[in-house]
Amino acid sequence: MLILLCTSSADSDKYVLENIHGRTSIRNYSDDPVPDEKIRELLRAAMAAPSSRNVQPWLFYIVKDREKLDRLAAGLPYAKMLGHAQLAIVVCGDTGKGSPNEEQKMNWVMDCSAATQNLLLAAHALGLGAVWTGVYPYAERMHVVRETLQIPDHVIPLNVIPIGYPAEYPTPKDKWNPENIVSGFDAKAD
Amino acid sequence: MLILLCTSSADSDKYVLENIHGRTSIRNYSDDPVPDEKIRELLRAAMAAPSSRNVQPWLFYIVKDREKLDRLAAGLPYAKMLGHAQLAIVVCGDTGKGSPNEEQKMNWVMDCSAATQNLLLAAHALGLGAVWTGVYPYAERMHVVRETLQIPDHVIPLNVIPIGYPAEYPTPKDKWNPENIVSGFDAKAD
Repeated sequence: MLILLCTSSADSDKYVLENIHGRTSIRNYSDDPVPDEKIRELLRAAMAAPSSRNVQPWLFYIVKDREKLDRLAAGLPYAKMLGHAQLAIVVCGDTGKGSPNEEQKMNWVMDCSAATQNLLLAAHALGLGAVWTGVYPYAERMHVVRETLQIPDHVIPLNVIPIGYPAEYPTPKDKWNPENIVSGFDAKAD
Repeated sequence: MLILLCTSSADSDKYVLENIHGRTSIRNYSDDPVPDEKIRELLRAAMAAPSSRNVQPWLFYIVKDREKLDRLAAGLPYAKMLGHAQLAIVVCGDTGKGSPNEEQKMNWVMDCSAATQNLLLAAHALGLGAVWTGVYPYAERMHVVRETLQIPDHVIPLNVIPIGYPAEYPTPKDKWNPENIVSGFDAKAD
C-alpha cells in the first residue's frame, strides 16, 4: 500500500508566495454575485493585519447598493469599474481610536494599508478580483466618498476596493528590481 | 492500493488564509543565520505590492552589520530586539520617484506599507520571524535611522523590520471584530 501526501509545509510556503506574486489589479468583473461568506473572509484577513500599538484603527464600509456604487463610479477618477462591480469595500481609518498625539495621528494610514493588502491577497486566494483605488489624501475624492456613504468627520476613507469575480486575467507585472535594494551601503559612505 | 492526496486549489486558498492569520509579531530570534536566498524572497514579495500609478516608490536597506544593528537598537524605542536579530530590512519611500503633486506626495506611505505587509507575510511563510517597528512619522526615530544608514533627504524611512528565525511562537491575536464593519448603513441614515 502506497500513500502519498503531496502537501508538505514547503508547498504551503510556495502557495503563499505564488499568491503574493499572482495577485494583480482586476478591473473587469463578471455578473456572478459574491457570497457573504467570502466577504467575511476578506474582512477577517484585513483585520489580521498588524497595527501600531494594536489600535486596529480600521473601519470597513461594505457597499452593495447599486445606486451608491454608481455614484462612487461617477464621482471618483479611476473608479469607473465600480459601475459593474458586485460590491466595494471602503477601507477607512477611525481617528477616534487610540489616544493619538500629533505624530501617532498618522499611524492609521500604515495600519489600514497593511489591512488593505491582506484583503487584496485574500481576494486573489479566494478567486476574486479587486483593485486598490486611492481616496486619501485627495480632498475631492474624500468628499465624494464621505457624502455618498455618510461617513462622519473622524473617519477618513483611505481607498475604495471594487470586488467581483474576474472577467479578465491579466498577467501580473514582474516588479523585481535590484536597484531598489541598498545593501553593502558601507561602500557608499564618504 | 494507491492513495494520492494531492494539493488542490482549495488547499492553496486555505494555506494563504492560514498564513495571513498565523502571522504575528516575533521579537525573539535564534542565532541561526538567514540565507541570502530567503532575504531575496522577502524583497521579491515586497516588490510585488501594488503602488499608486505603479511608481514603486520603495527602497529597501539591508542591515546585517552588527554595529549598525546595535546603534538602531539603542536609538529607537520598541526596537531592542534589533540587538539580537540576524538582520533588519528598513523599508523606505523614495520621494524622488514619480512626479508627485502635493497630494500624490503621500502615496509612498500606502505603497510602502503594502510592500511591508507582503514582506511580513512572506517571512512567516518562509519560517522566519519579523516585526514592524514604526519609524515614520516620528522625527527623532527618522533622524536615528538616517544617521545610522546615511539615508539621503529625499528618502524617508517608514519602518525597521528585524528578522531572524523565531525563538518564540506566540499565539496570534484573534482581531476579528464585527463592530469594525459598517454594512446596511442605510439604516443609520437620518
